[in-house]
Amino acid sequence: MTARVGVIGGGQLARMMIPPAIEMGIDLRVLAETEDSSASFAASMVGDYRDHETVLAFSKEVDVVTFDHEHVPGPILQALEESGVAVRPGSSALESAQDKVTMRQRLATLGVPIPRWAVATSPEEIDDFLGEPGNQAIAKTPRGGYDGKGVRVISSSKDVDDWLSLGPVLLEEKVEFVREVAQLVARRPSGEVAPWPVVETVQKNGVCAEVIAPAPVSKDLHDRAQAIAITIAEGLDVTGVLAVEMFVLADGSLLVNELAMRPHNSGHIFTELSRTSQFEQHLRAVLDLPLGDTSLSAPNGVMVNIFGGVERDKLAETLGTNSIVKVHDYGKSARAGRKAGHVSAVGEDTEVLLVITRRAAEIVSVDPR
Amino acid sequence: MTARVGVIGGGQLARMMIPPAIEMGIDLRVLAETEDSSASFAASMVGDYRDHETVLAFSKEVDVVTFDHEHVPGPILQALEESGVAVRPGSSALESAQDKVTMRQRLATLGVPIPRWAVATSPEEIDDFLGEPGNQAIAKTPRGGYDGKGVRVISSSKDVDDWLSLGPVLLEEKVEFVREVAQLVARRPSGEVAPWPVVETVQKNGVCAEVIAPAPVSKDLHDRAQAIAITIAEGLDVTGVLAVEMFVLADGSLLVNELAMRPHNSGHIFTELSRTSQFEQHLRAVLDLPLGDTSLSAPNGVMVNIFGGVERDKLAETLGTNSIVKVHDYGKSARAGRKAGHVSAVGEDTEVLLVITRRAAEIVSVDPR
Repeated sequence: MTARVGVIGGGQLARMMIPPAIEMGIDLRVLAETEDSSASFAASMVGDYRDHETVLAFSKEVDVVTFDHEHVPGPILQALEESGVAVRPGSSALESAQDKVTMRQRLATLGVPIPRWAVATSPEEIDDFLGEPGNQAIAKTPRGGYDGKGVRVISSSKDVDDWLSLGPVLLEEKVEFVREVAQLVARRPSGEVAPWPVVETVQKNGVCAEVIAPAPVSKDLHDRAQAIAITIAEGLDVTGVLAVEMFVLADGSLLVNELAMRPHNSGHIFTELSRTSQFEQHLRAVLDLPLGDTSLSAPNGVMVNIFGGVERDKLAETLGTNSIVKVHDYGKSARAGRKAGHVSAVGEDTEVLLVITRRAAEIVSVDPR
Repeated sequence: MTARVGVIGGGQLARMMIPPAIEMGIDLRVLAETEDSSASFAASMVGDYRDHETVLAFSKEVDVVTFDHEHVPGPILQALEESGVAVRPGSSALESAQDKVTMRQRLATLGVPIPRWAVATSPEEIDDFLGEPGNQAIAKTPRGGYDGKGVRVISSSKDVDDWLSLGPVLLEEKVEFVREVAQLVARRPSGEVAPWPVVETVQKNGVCAEVIAPAPVSKDLHDRAQAIAITIAEGLDVTGVLAVEMFVLADGSLLVNELAMRPHNSGHIFTELSRTSQFEQHLRAVLDLPLGDTSLSAPNGVMVNIFGGVERDKLAETLGTNSIVKVHDYGKSARAGRKAGHVSAVGEDTEVLLVITRRAAEIVSVDPR
């Protein structure tokens, strides 16, 4: 029987699962938000992922359900599981990706290093956490934040008055880091795990802009990053791809910042750089198929995001800058700041790759801001 | 504007163009023979490629027309070109892939080494070509042959009585070769050419069964194979991927056997082994986009065809044999001898790769013969 995988959400992550699904003969079906979604090519249904009946009907047509995003309400996922649907990652694991407070509680229990944190429900608790005047902290909404949304640097409880009126606010120490890295790992239900090398992520305005792979870090740091990600994948029973975003401090220690339980922007470079892309691996993992080789096909790789839109009339000019340039177009219309695609290249020298990919991304990007 | 490529024919070659089209944001549309074609995922039309109106209507919806096979009648292609459609490769080039006599005439004109040949229209001409009793020759129908069909080893004109009654028969000396190789090259309309390394093809019953890449041949032979393929691509004005199948004789000399002007079974290994797959390169070439880097991502690669059908229930067992195994499923139902998919792997040691891929292909194949 042809294996059938259902993806909830029609964004670029679902879109990039389509190529390996075609290669492996997997019947990939997408529940898309709109007719013109990034993954419309594989959309078997258009509907609201917050509607229980819609999600249930979609799930009945596939062998396993997985995700393009983490926004499907927990109660719907639990109901799916109770009705016998294979949901991967499961609702319990996903709770840690959906709720930042739950995540920190669980990571603390697992003994994983995380920034000092607290949950505040009053201005006094916030000011207590801040301590002396002039101190800063990070405030986050427990749910719904991504790409810099739902995150603020605060120096007073007044900075989150609006959030406090809606519910608890997560507070974290403002970590002085020297670098940000992401560790991706895939895990299948029967237990096998396969990590990729840790990568460096470069954020601009709170959004991942560039990825350098592998991260230029010591073997020791690399090993610790992998151990942390595997601890989390196993401890939270994650299935599929898990991305663990971490801060690297001046002393080389690591603190976990965020989790994503799906393919992740920081792993796009593995499409060219690894023998197994994160999209192929995610499909293998959620189907409980043996995982693919994650060794690298080149010493280094660089990915640069295309923000706004893809200037399709400049594809020839862009590819003409260097034969190693790969352009990934998410098929979206242009919108200010939107992740519309990415450029990648692999080779020997990271500095050279950065020059090549930045130039290509600049040519092929059109940001309507 | 999103570039639109129309592929005539819905076989596995069209299917394997879909992943790079999705990655690059190219709107790929397929004119498929049947509703359940291998490339049905991208089929925008189902119809008969031998019908002028059907092909013209399909062509009007795309920027450039290319092919999954070489069977579209020449007059239809010429009419398309006269009406302003960009046909790549063009009808003149394709004539050499469609008609083996034309091909040999043109290759002779280009000075490319080919086996001794003649066109026979009578039993006497055939017996003349054979010479002494006991001699053998290869007889081919000028048109329509592939995968061993339309090819016979003959020792008498009686062996092709049936063909002679239908028209001329192409005769070729029976070449004593030590190895068969294929040289793939891509060429775009503006002239750029990009060859891959020459590969060895292993035929079973006249059909390609295994590919070893690069072919274990001398640098000199490698260079000559590339020069021959580039001479043909330029001399025949081929656009897109050109595959040149050649015999290697005991003295190391090369003789061209067959041409294909499209991605080819012998190039499937480049999906993993090269920085640019033949499918991505074909799309870039027919759109006259700059060609991609064809350098290798590993020292060696091996491809083994899956004949008959893909045993989909054994995908887990197959992938479990080794994490470097890649299974490509063409989405076809099982039929005796049919090319239903292929297995590939890349790495250091060809002998090891052969053991791994043959074992995987054996597990995942089901031949209903």
